[in-house]
Amino acid sequence: MDTGDTAWVLISAALVLLMTPGLAFFYGGMTRAKSVLNMMMMSFGAIALVGVLWVTVGYSMSFGTDVGAGLLGNPLEKFGLEGVLTTGEGAPLSGTIPEIVFVGFQAVFAIITVALISGSIADRAKFGSWMVFAGLFAVLVYFPVAHWVFDFNKDADGNPIGGWIGQGLGVIDFAGGTAVHINAGAAGLALALILGKRNGFGKDPNHRPHNLPFVMLGAGLLWFGWFGFNAGSALAANSVAGYAWINTLVAPCAAILGWLIVEKLRDGHATSLGAASGIVAGLVAITPAASALTPLWSIVLGFIAGILCALAVGLKYRFGYDDSLDVVGVHLVGGILGTLFIGFAANPDSPAAGQGLFYGGGFELLGKQALGAGAVLVYSFVLSLLIGWAIRATMGFRVSLEAEEAGVDIALHAETAYSASAAGSGFHPLGHRAEADVKAFNADDLLTASKAPEKKVEA
Amino acid sequence: MDTGDTAWVLISAALVLLMTPGLAFFYGGMTRAKSVLNMMMMSFGAIALVGVLWVTVGYSMSFGTDVGAGLLGNPLEKFGLEGVLTTGEGAPLSGTIPEIVFVGFQAVFAIITVALISGSIADRAKFGSWMVFAGLFAVLVYFPVAHWVFDFNKDADGNPIGGWIGQGLGVIDFAGGTAVHINAGAAGLALALILGKRNGFGKDPNHRPHNLPFVMLGAGLLWFGWFGFNAGSALAANSVAGYAWINTLVAPCAAILGWLIVEKLRDGHATSLGAASGIVAGLVAITPAASALTPLWSIVLGFIAGILCALAVGLKYRFGYDDSLDVVGVHLVGGILGTLFIGFAANPDSPAAGQGLFYGGGFELLGKQALGAGAVLVYSFVLSLLIGWAIRATMGFRVSLEAEEAGVDIALHAETAYSASAAGSGFHPLGHRAEADVKAFNADDLLTASKAPEKKVEA
Amino acid sequence: MDTGDTAWVLISAALVLLMTPGLAFFYGGMTRAKSVLNMMMMSFGAIALVGVLWVTVGYSMSFGTDVGAGLLGNPLEKFGLEGVLTTGEGAPLSGTIPEIVFVGFQAVFAIITVALISGSIADRAKFGSWMVFAGLFAVLVYFPVAHWVFDFNKDADGNPIGGWIGQGLGVIDFAGGTAVHINAGAAGLALALILGKRNGFGKDPNHRPHNLPFVMLGAGLLWFGWFGFNAGSALAANSVAGYAWINTLVAPCAAILGWLIVEKLRDGHATSLGAASGIVAGLVAITPAASALTPLWSIVLGFIAGILCALAVGLKYRFGYDDSLDVVGVHLVGGILGTLFIGFAANPDSPAAGQGLFYGGGFELLGKQALGAGAVLVYSFVLSLLIGWAIRATMGFRVSLEAEEAGVDIALHAETAYSASAAGSGFHPLGHRAEADVKAFNADDLLTASKAPEKKVEA
Repeated sequence: MDTGDTAWVLISAALVLLMTPGLAFFYGGMTRAKSVLNMMMMSFGAIALVGVLWVTVGYSMSFGTDVGAGLLGNPLEKFGLEGVLTTGEGAPLSGTIPEIVFVGFQAVFAIITVALISGSIADRAKFGSWMVFAGLFAVLVYFPVAHWVFDFNKDADGNPIGGWIGQGLGVIDFAGGTAVHINAGAAGLALALILGKRNGFGKDPNHRPHNLPFVMLGAGLLWFGWFGFNAGSALAANSVAGYAWINTLVAPCAAILGWLIVEKLRDGHATSLGAASGIVAGLVAITPAASALTPLWSIVLGFIAGILCALAVGLKYRFGYDDSLDVVGVHLVGGILGTLFIGFAANPDSPAAGQGLFYGGGFELLGKQALGAGAVLVYSFVLSLLIGWAIRATMGFRVSLEAEEAGVDIALHAETAYSASAAGSGFHPLGHRAEADVKAFNADDLLTASKAPEKKVEA
Repeated sequence: MDTGDTAWVLISAALVLLMTPGLAFFYGGMTRAKSVLNMMMMSFGAIALVGVLWVTVGYSMSFGTDVGAGLLGNPLEKFGLEGVLTTGEGAPLSGTIPEIVFVGFQAVFAIITVALISGSIADRAKFGSWMVFAGLFAVLVYFPVAHWVFDFNKDADGNPIGGWIGQGLGVIDFAGGTAVHINAGAAGLALALILGKRNGFGKDPNHRPHNLPFVMLGAGLLWFGWFGFNAGSALAANSVAGYAWINTLVAPCAAILGWLIVEKLRDGHATSLGAASGIVAGLVAITPAASALTPLWSIVLGFIAGILCALAVGLKYRFGYDDSLDVVGVHLVGGILGTLFIGFAANPDSPAAGQGLFYGGGFELLGKQALGAGAVLVYSFVLSLLIGWAIRATMGFRVSLEAEEAGVDIALHAETAYSASAAGSGFHPLGHRAEADVKAFNADDLLTASKAPEKKVEA
Repeated sequence: MDTGDTAWVLISAALVLLMTPGLAFFYGGMTRAKSVLNMMMMSFGAIALVGVLWVTVGYSMSFGTDVGAGLLGNPLEKFGLEGVLTTGEGAPLSGTIPEIVFVGFQAVFAIITVALISGSIADRAKFGSWMVFAGLFAVLVYFPVAHWVFDFNKDADGNPIGGWIGQGLGVIDFAGGTAVHINAGAAGLALALILGKRNGFGKDPNHRPHNLPFVMLGAGLLWFGWFGFNAGSALAANSVAGYAWINTLVAPCAAILGWLIVEKLRDGHATSLGAASGIVAGLVAITPAASALTPLWSIVLGFIAGILCALAVGLKYRFGYDDSLDVVGVHLVGGILGTLFIGFAANPDSPAAGQGLFYGGGFELLGKQALGAGAVLVYSFVLSLLIGWAIRATMGFRVSLEAEEAGVDIALHAETAYSASAAGSGFHPLGHRAEADVKAFNADDLLTASKAPEKKVEA
């Protein structure tokens, strides 16, 4: 047991936990003011439910002994962290750190993956239905996929018995390009299709961020936390962590520049929304690749990610799916880009020691990367579509049109983010008329309405 | 000296410092817009004053050699950190870390305990009076109580000469259920009684959070910092820290669920304020217990804390004390719950090695826990009542009714949180009329008015 | 290689990265609502560009082998981190940590120094021109100055071949009083002169912070990150880091008190803006001195910094330069104060082992400190003036008067921070009239106008 490594993973785990509140602001700032609380609640609700599920059954499903073919860990073996809880001298280790520290680090990956999905269904999801989805997705999709990608267990003889993608196939995914970002992006696409478009999608100019400083705050907190996500994935405080740290700095730097250049050339304006989105695009792309690319190649990857994602977020208008806050355009596209780019530019002298096409490795690594990415994409998309469909068919997934127009915050949560009457000295953020409006608005009516059959989904 | 342990406590101390700005947002978002700055200033003022006091006399009072009976450390022994400042080879240690790192870690506990109290007197406290209270409370209440609970010093022969609660009685309080939360909660109750109710308490619908995203931000920062608070209390980067880390994750997760279920069943709506409050309730409850309960029992404790505190915050309306932002309902109730729950569910194989009632330990541990909790509660409540009473009788503690209605921000600090005129392009958060209002409002008049005899306190 | 030291520097580097988003909020909250995004974009743009420059050429210019006289590192030696990228057993070290971790820690110092400058040109700078300035300043000013102050390289025989100020002259600057704060402050003064005053400077009451909670948030995040900045500069998790940590706590504490006392005595009101500014003033002053002063002397320094900076921010009105958000009054004045104060109060028993005037060291150390401070001040001011002048003469540095009045956010970035139409339920932060205004406002016209000859600069 190494205390320095342990200290680094302990703080990295806390950093990754902070990413989900960061995400709540990144997403929340982008919604309309009348649905920001619902948006944030989907992140905080994911923390609550997935946290409890992870400690009970999730860790065991992801990192318990493989039940066969690298598909799943034994859910009962470490139920409730059975066998992990000894502290002091006899504490079980995971590499050079106590296994219970590893449990915490992996817990927050599960949480944020689920929370990321919620961006595609802003402004129109029922909170209760989201929570059911979050729980089912965690158990049926994330826990198995984390096993596929992140489980490197060996049996007593040192033979690999871990996940089929990471250990079996040898796909390079340092911190979760497949398990986290492609996974969440594919699920986000499925849910966007299941819930259908917001009223006014693509036409209503009011569908724009209500609070851009919140978006910047979210991006800042996400970046900060992502150093734990990526550099913490070294599971040690060493040069590999430093290597990943540097790449986690420069890829988003270059992605900001790429995104802003696209905006400037295309629209004539570099925007703060573009800068914030560029940060996340660069971070997503470097996630699988942080240990595989030199910093100069990371700059190239980040720059491409900024450009590509800036273009990709427009696809939803062309193809007509309302991925409201661009989970697909940033996480799915960025995740695929980063995962495949390893196949081209992986440096044999990097910590990951992959040999990409540019370094004479031929197409072998690229093929593996594509297979890993594709497998997670398809599995996540199909399962999410099925889960989402089942929820829509039973309890409903979308609020009524009336509730959507009134705002899900007041309709579902009986709250508004910013209080009119709270202000004094002539300060009335809701305007003088607003207070009466809010009182006249009968939230319960809307809730009833929201149980009525949903508008036919257009997608 | 272990560098890994030192790294972990250094960053934990910074995390706990961040909790107080986090608290400023958690509390500030809950006030009306016209008193948010005053609310935040109480937190930042506490940092300023208590930080200086800690380094001069506080550390010595809490962790200097006991002057007798485990009641107080010698205030002069380590005045100005005398004897702690040697660095390099001869640096004094506290366990495996340099003592000066321990000084920093404990400093931020003192700071946040004082800041926590301010939630009970939102919207109506004089800033100067608060600062006087903060200083007196730190010196007369917190520094001694920290000695009681956290001082585990031994004499040269290894005999305990530390605090009477932690080391003497053997109460299990890992990170401050008694010294921090019961302490702050009891003081909050005392001040709520001393200052009396806000005008319109329980009737005015305007008494609601003016900025719920700020409340969420505060809750997120608090949770992030709390990993330093709890897992840092292991004072080492090891499996005990990991154990506490996991419990600091899952207890609040379960508490969110508990709080939201109460809201859903009782009111029909799960709110973001409930989710944020649930986080804090779960964190408070697990604070003393993070090293004593298995993760599964921590889930149970968190769930109960969410339910109990969701109910407890309504008590102020029944009993008529205006604990404005629920210091009593969350910190006092949650702190007592967590401290007593150890008496029931402490696991003999946990790092704390307590034996609760459920594990065949009988009532012994429960009795000790109750005694420790009760002693801190009574001491803090009585002293706070006396200090508050003395301040009220001399300099006054509450602003005038005029200042309260105009808003303490403009009346006391000559500021408004959000500026009308600052905006362009037709953006007028204060409305066109507001600017004139602000100018017409003569802050000095109000300050004069606030020196007039106070309205009789109703409590 | 020590894993504990490495863990501490890894997290410290992430903390310092967080400071720049923190700065974006500290500055952004102080601007008018119509230019907050432009303000934040200057910080995020600095991260993007300086991050990429650092990894390509900056690290080599600052820490490559000196090309002579301690003036510059060889820019080609470590281009693209050549020679630094080996991980595992053969990884190059910097002290007890991998050199690549040191690269990351120093990267974020370069970033924030550049970002700090932007505060002096709030509300009126062209984003593209700022980006050009940021790049040129980084390469021509920061990278060399960092070499002067922070490079302690030795040749193979152990002879110093590092920077002329830190290693050559023996100036004590623990974490960047000269290289960061005097540097940024002097550049800020130069740019304030180059761009000239905002329309209405010193007369328009609308020039006040539009969102003071954001200012508090920024101050809180800056403080949190500054523990990495200062205590991380020990480059090890040891008692020296603890010593710097404590000073980084108490100096700002005392500075808050100093600033608020000035306000209370002078204006009758202690403000939240004063508390937030006091934090930064105290942090700036203690930055060079964190390893040189006892905590009691740090309290004295912080208290003086709070008072002095509270007075210094008024100088711009007397002398007529529009240092809009007080980069000069806080960073230049605070940086000089802290650097010189070491000459008076440096304690021979402190980690820095300086001997100040008060400890019988005579004027020697004070003279060195003054020389180091003066050299950086003059170099940075002159170069910034030249760079700024060249940008103004070619592409222009300032938006048109029309764009300034409309707000740089809408004029340059085609965005507003807070969206009117985004809100529902009668919530209209921009007012009912505003939406039409925004639409009628033709951003492209303004951009064209902004290319017209600039108003003559008054300074």
